[in-house]
Amino acid sequence: MCPRGCLSSICDHATRRGLLKAGFTFGVGAAAAATTTGFSATPARAAPISFERTEDLSHALYEGFPTMGGDKWFTVENIVNFAEHKVNLNRWTMMEHTGTHMDAPIHFSADGMTADMIPIGDLIVPLAVVNIAAKAADNADAELTPDDIRAWEAKNGPLPEGCCVVMNSGWHKLVGDARFTGRDGEGRNHTPGFHAETAHMLITERNVRGIGVDTLSLDTGLNSSGAFPVHYEWLGSGRWGVEAVANLDAVPETGARVLLGTPKVKGATGGPTRVIALL
Amino acid sequence: MCPRGCLSSICDHATRRGLLKAGFTFGVGAAAAATTTGFSATPARAAPISFERTEDLSHALYEGFPTMGGDKWFTVENIVNFAEHKVNLNRWTMMEHTGTHMDAPIHFSADGMTADMIPIGDLIVPLAVVNIAAKAADNADAELTPDDIRAWEAKNGPLPEGCCVVMNSGWHKLVGDARFTGRDGEGRNHTPGFHAETAHMLITERNVRGIGVDTLSLDTGLNSSGAFPVHYEWLGSGRWGVEAVANLDAVPETGARVLLGTPKVKGATGGPTRVIALL
Repeated sequence: MCPRGCLSSICDHATRRGLLKAGFTFGVGAAAAATTTGFSATPARAAPISFERTEDLSHALYEGFPTMGGDKWFTVENIVNFAEHKVNLNRWTMMEHTGTHMDAPIHFSADGMTADMIPIGDLIVPLAVVNIAAKAADNADAELTPDDIRAWEAKNGPLPEGCCVVMNSGWHKLVGDARFTGRDGEGRNHTPGFHAETAHMLITERNVRGIGVDTLSLDTGLNSSGAFPVHYEWLGSGRWGVEAVANLDAVPETGARVLLGTPKVKGATGGPTRVIALL
Repeated sequence: MCPRGCLSSICDHATRRGLLKAGFTFGVGAAAAATTTGFSATPARAAPISFERTEDLSHALYEGFPTMGGDKWFTVENIVNFAEHKVNLNRWTMMEHTGTHMDAPIHFSADGMTADMIPIGDLIVPLAVVNIAAKAADNADAELTPDDIRAWEAKNGPLPEGCCVVMNSGWHKLVGDARFTGRDGEGRNHTPGFHAETAHMLITERNVRGIGVDTLSLDTGLNSSGAFPVHYEWLGSGRWGVEAVANLDAVPETGARVLLGTPKVKGATGGPTRVIALL
């Protein structure tokens, strides 16, 4: 059972998946990830990384930041204030997955890495931005398909080794607009996301470390109150995700790096993240 | 009044400072900071920054991570788990200032910048590490003095422009040891910190953007249950701080950069931070 009012849309549906089937799939995925995703025990790098400027790809988080189900996932209490106490300090209560945030493999797997286990060197990777804003403008259920990846590669060359592929659907400009969660009268969400076949392709045919979206879910909204096919396969393979990425029109399709500044919390399934592009 | 059991050591004493005097000081400091600390409206940089590897300077945060007063400032509730719900997710309740974390100017000022207002480009700066571990080993109340800065410069050259000066007292190796908070039978803390004259020197005679410590307070423990002279002058001048920095023996005294991955939370006085050295 889910605690009342906080996670009903996820857990009511996610529990429909079979435990054995999922566990088996994830077991294989996790084992494979250790040898195929290039996660390194040490953050050493062979070639220097250079950058001249940065772009902040993080939304500001606030009470009332949208969530798929409409629940309040972040609250702030002022504990002491300067006028009375000469100190300002707040207490936060938050779900790990609100605002701009990381999904660690453990979020949708039985035994994947928690956020604190991912070496920082594996959170600084080449950035590939795939823009599907044109088709998403006409269809809030649009998906980033394998053909979108192939079109990107035809224009920009092969995806960089060990990169993060981020979907720019235009949704990063919609925070505060009802379209950001796309919740309809029947409680379904209509927001763009990765197609399940794209996740599978990036795992099996490319060397990609993370995927990201400018929406609240790696999956489409319609798949985020049920099957979560991308979450299960991608995170289950030992890779990470990042959601609610902001400011994507400020970075090029290729050539930048992205850095995930995620708090190092033991056992975390993710966490609020400062996402920074190095250009 | 402080809520029971959460901030008594800070606010009982901090409120002793005069409102007008402090407000005046901070107002001048904040205004001066805008023109003297080089905080930039855009993150553009003139010269490329290169690095070959990273070091994680963050402690893992967990329930029971030490606090000066012994209060519990971070709790984790598991909301759904994979065995039952096919999803793992936790809720955190935390003070903004626990574990490895940033102090934004507003933490100890009336009108300084909140964490979300600091441009990301001003959180990636040259790192200068001042090692006072030898004297701190014999004296838990040891201070990083202006003479320590001068000795560092005699050895390494002038402090880099716009740098962050971090104290390595050896305390980063003491998490879990009673010495980390150094709390005595009378409720006083004995931990190393910056001398107030050092903060003043770095504000008035150098171009320094941030200061950091491997303890829980920029001030010494003895000054952290009362006057907080370093907090008031440093943060009041519009500059930031970072506390409980880890792994400092892995970085050189000069030549690296430090990046603060602090969540972008509206109105935050600080926050749990992924501190990363770029080498």
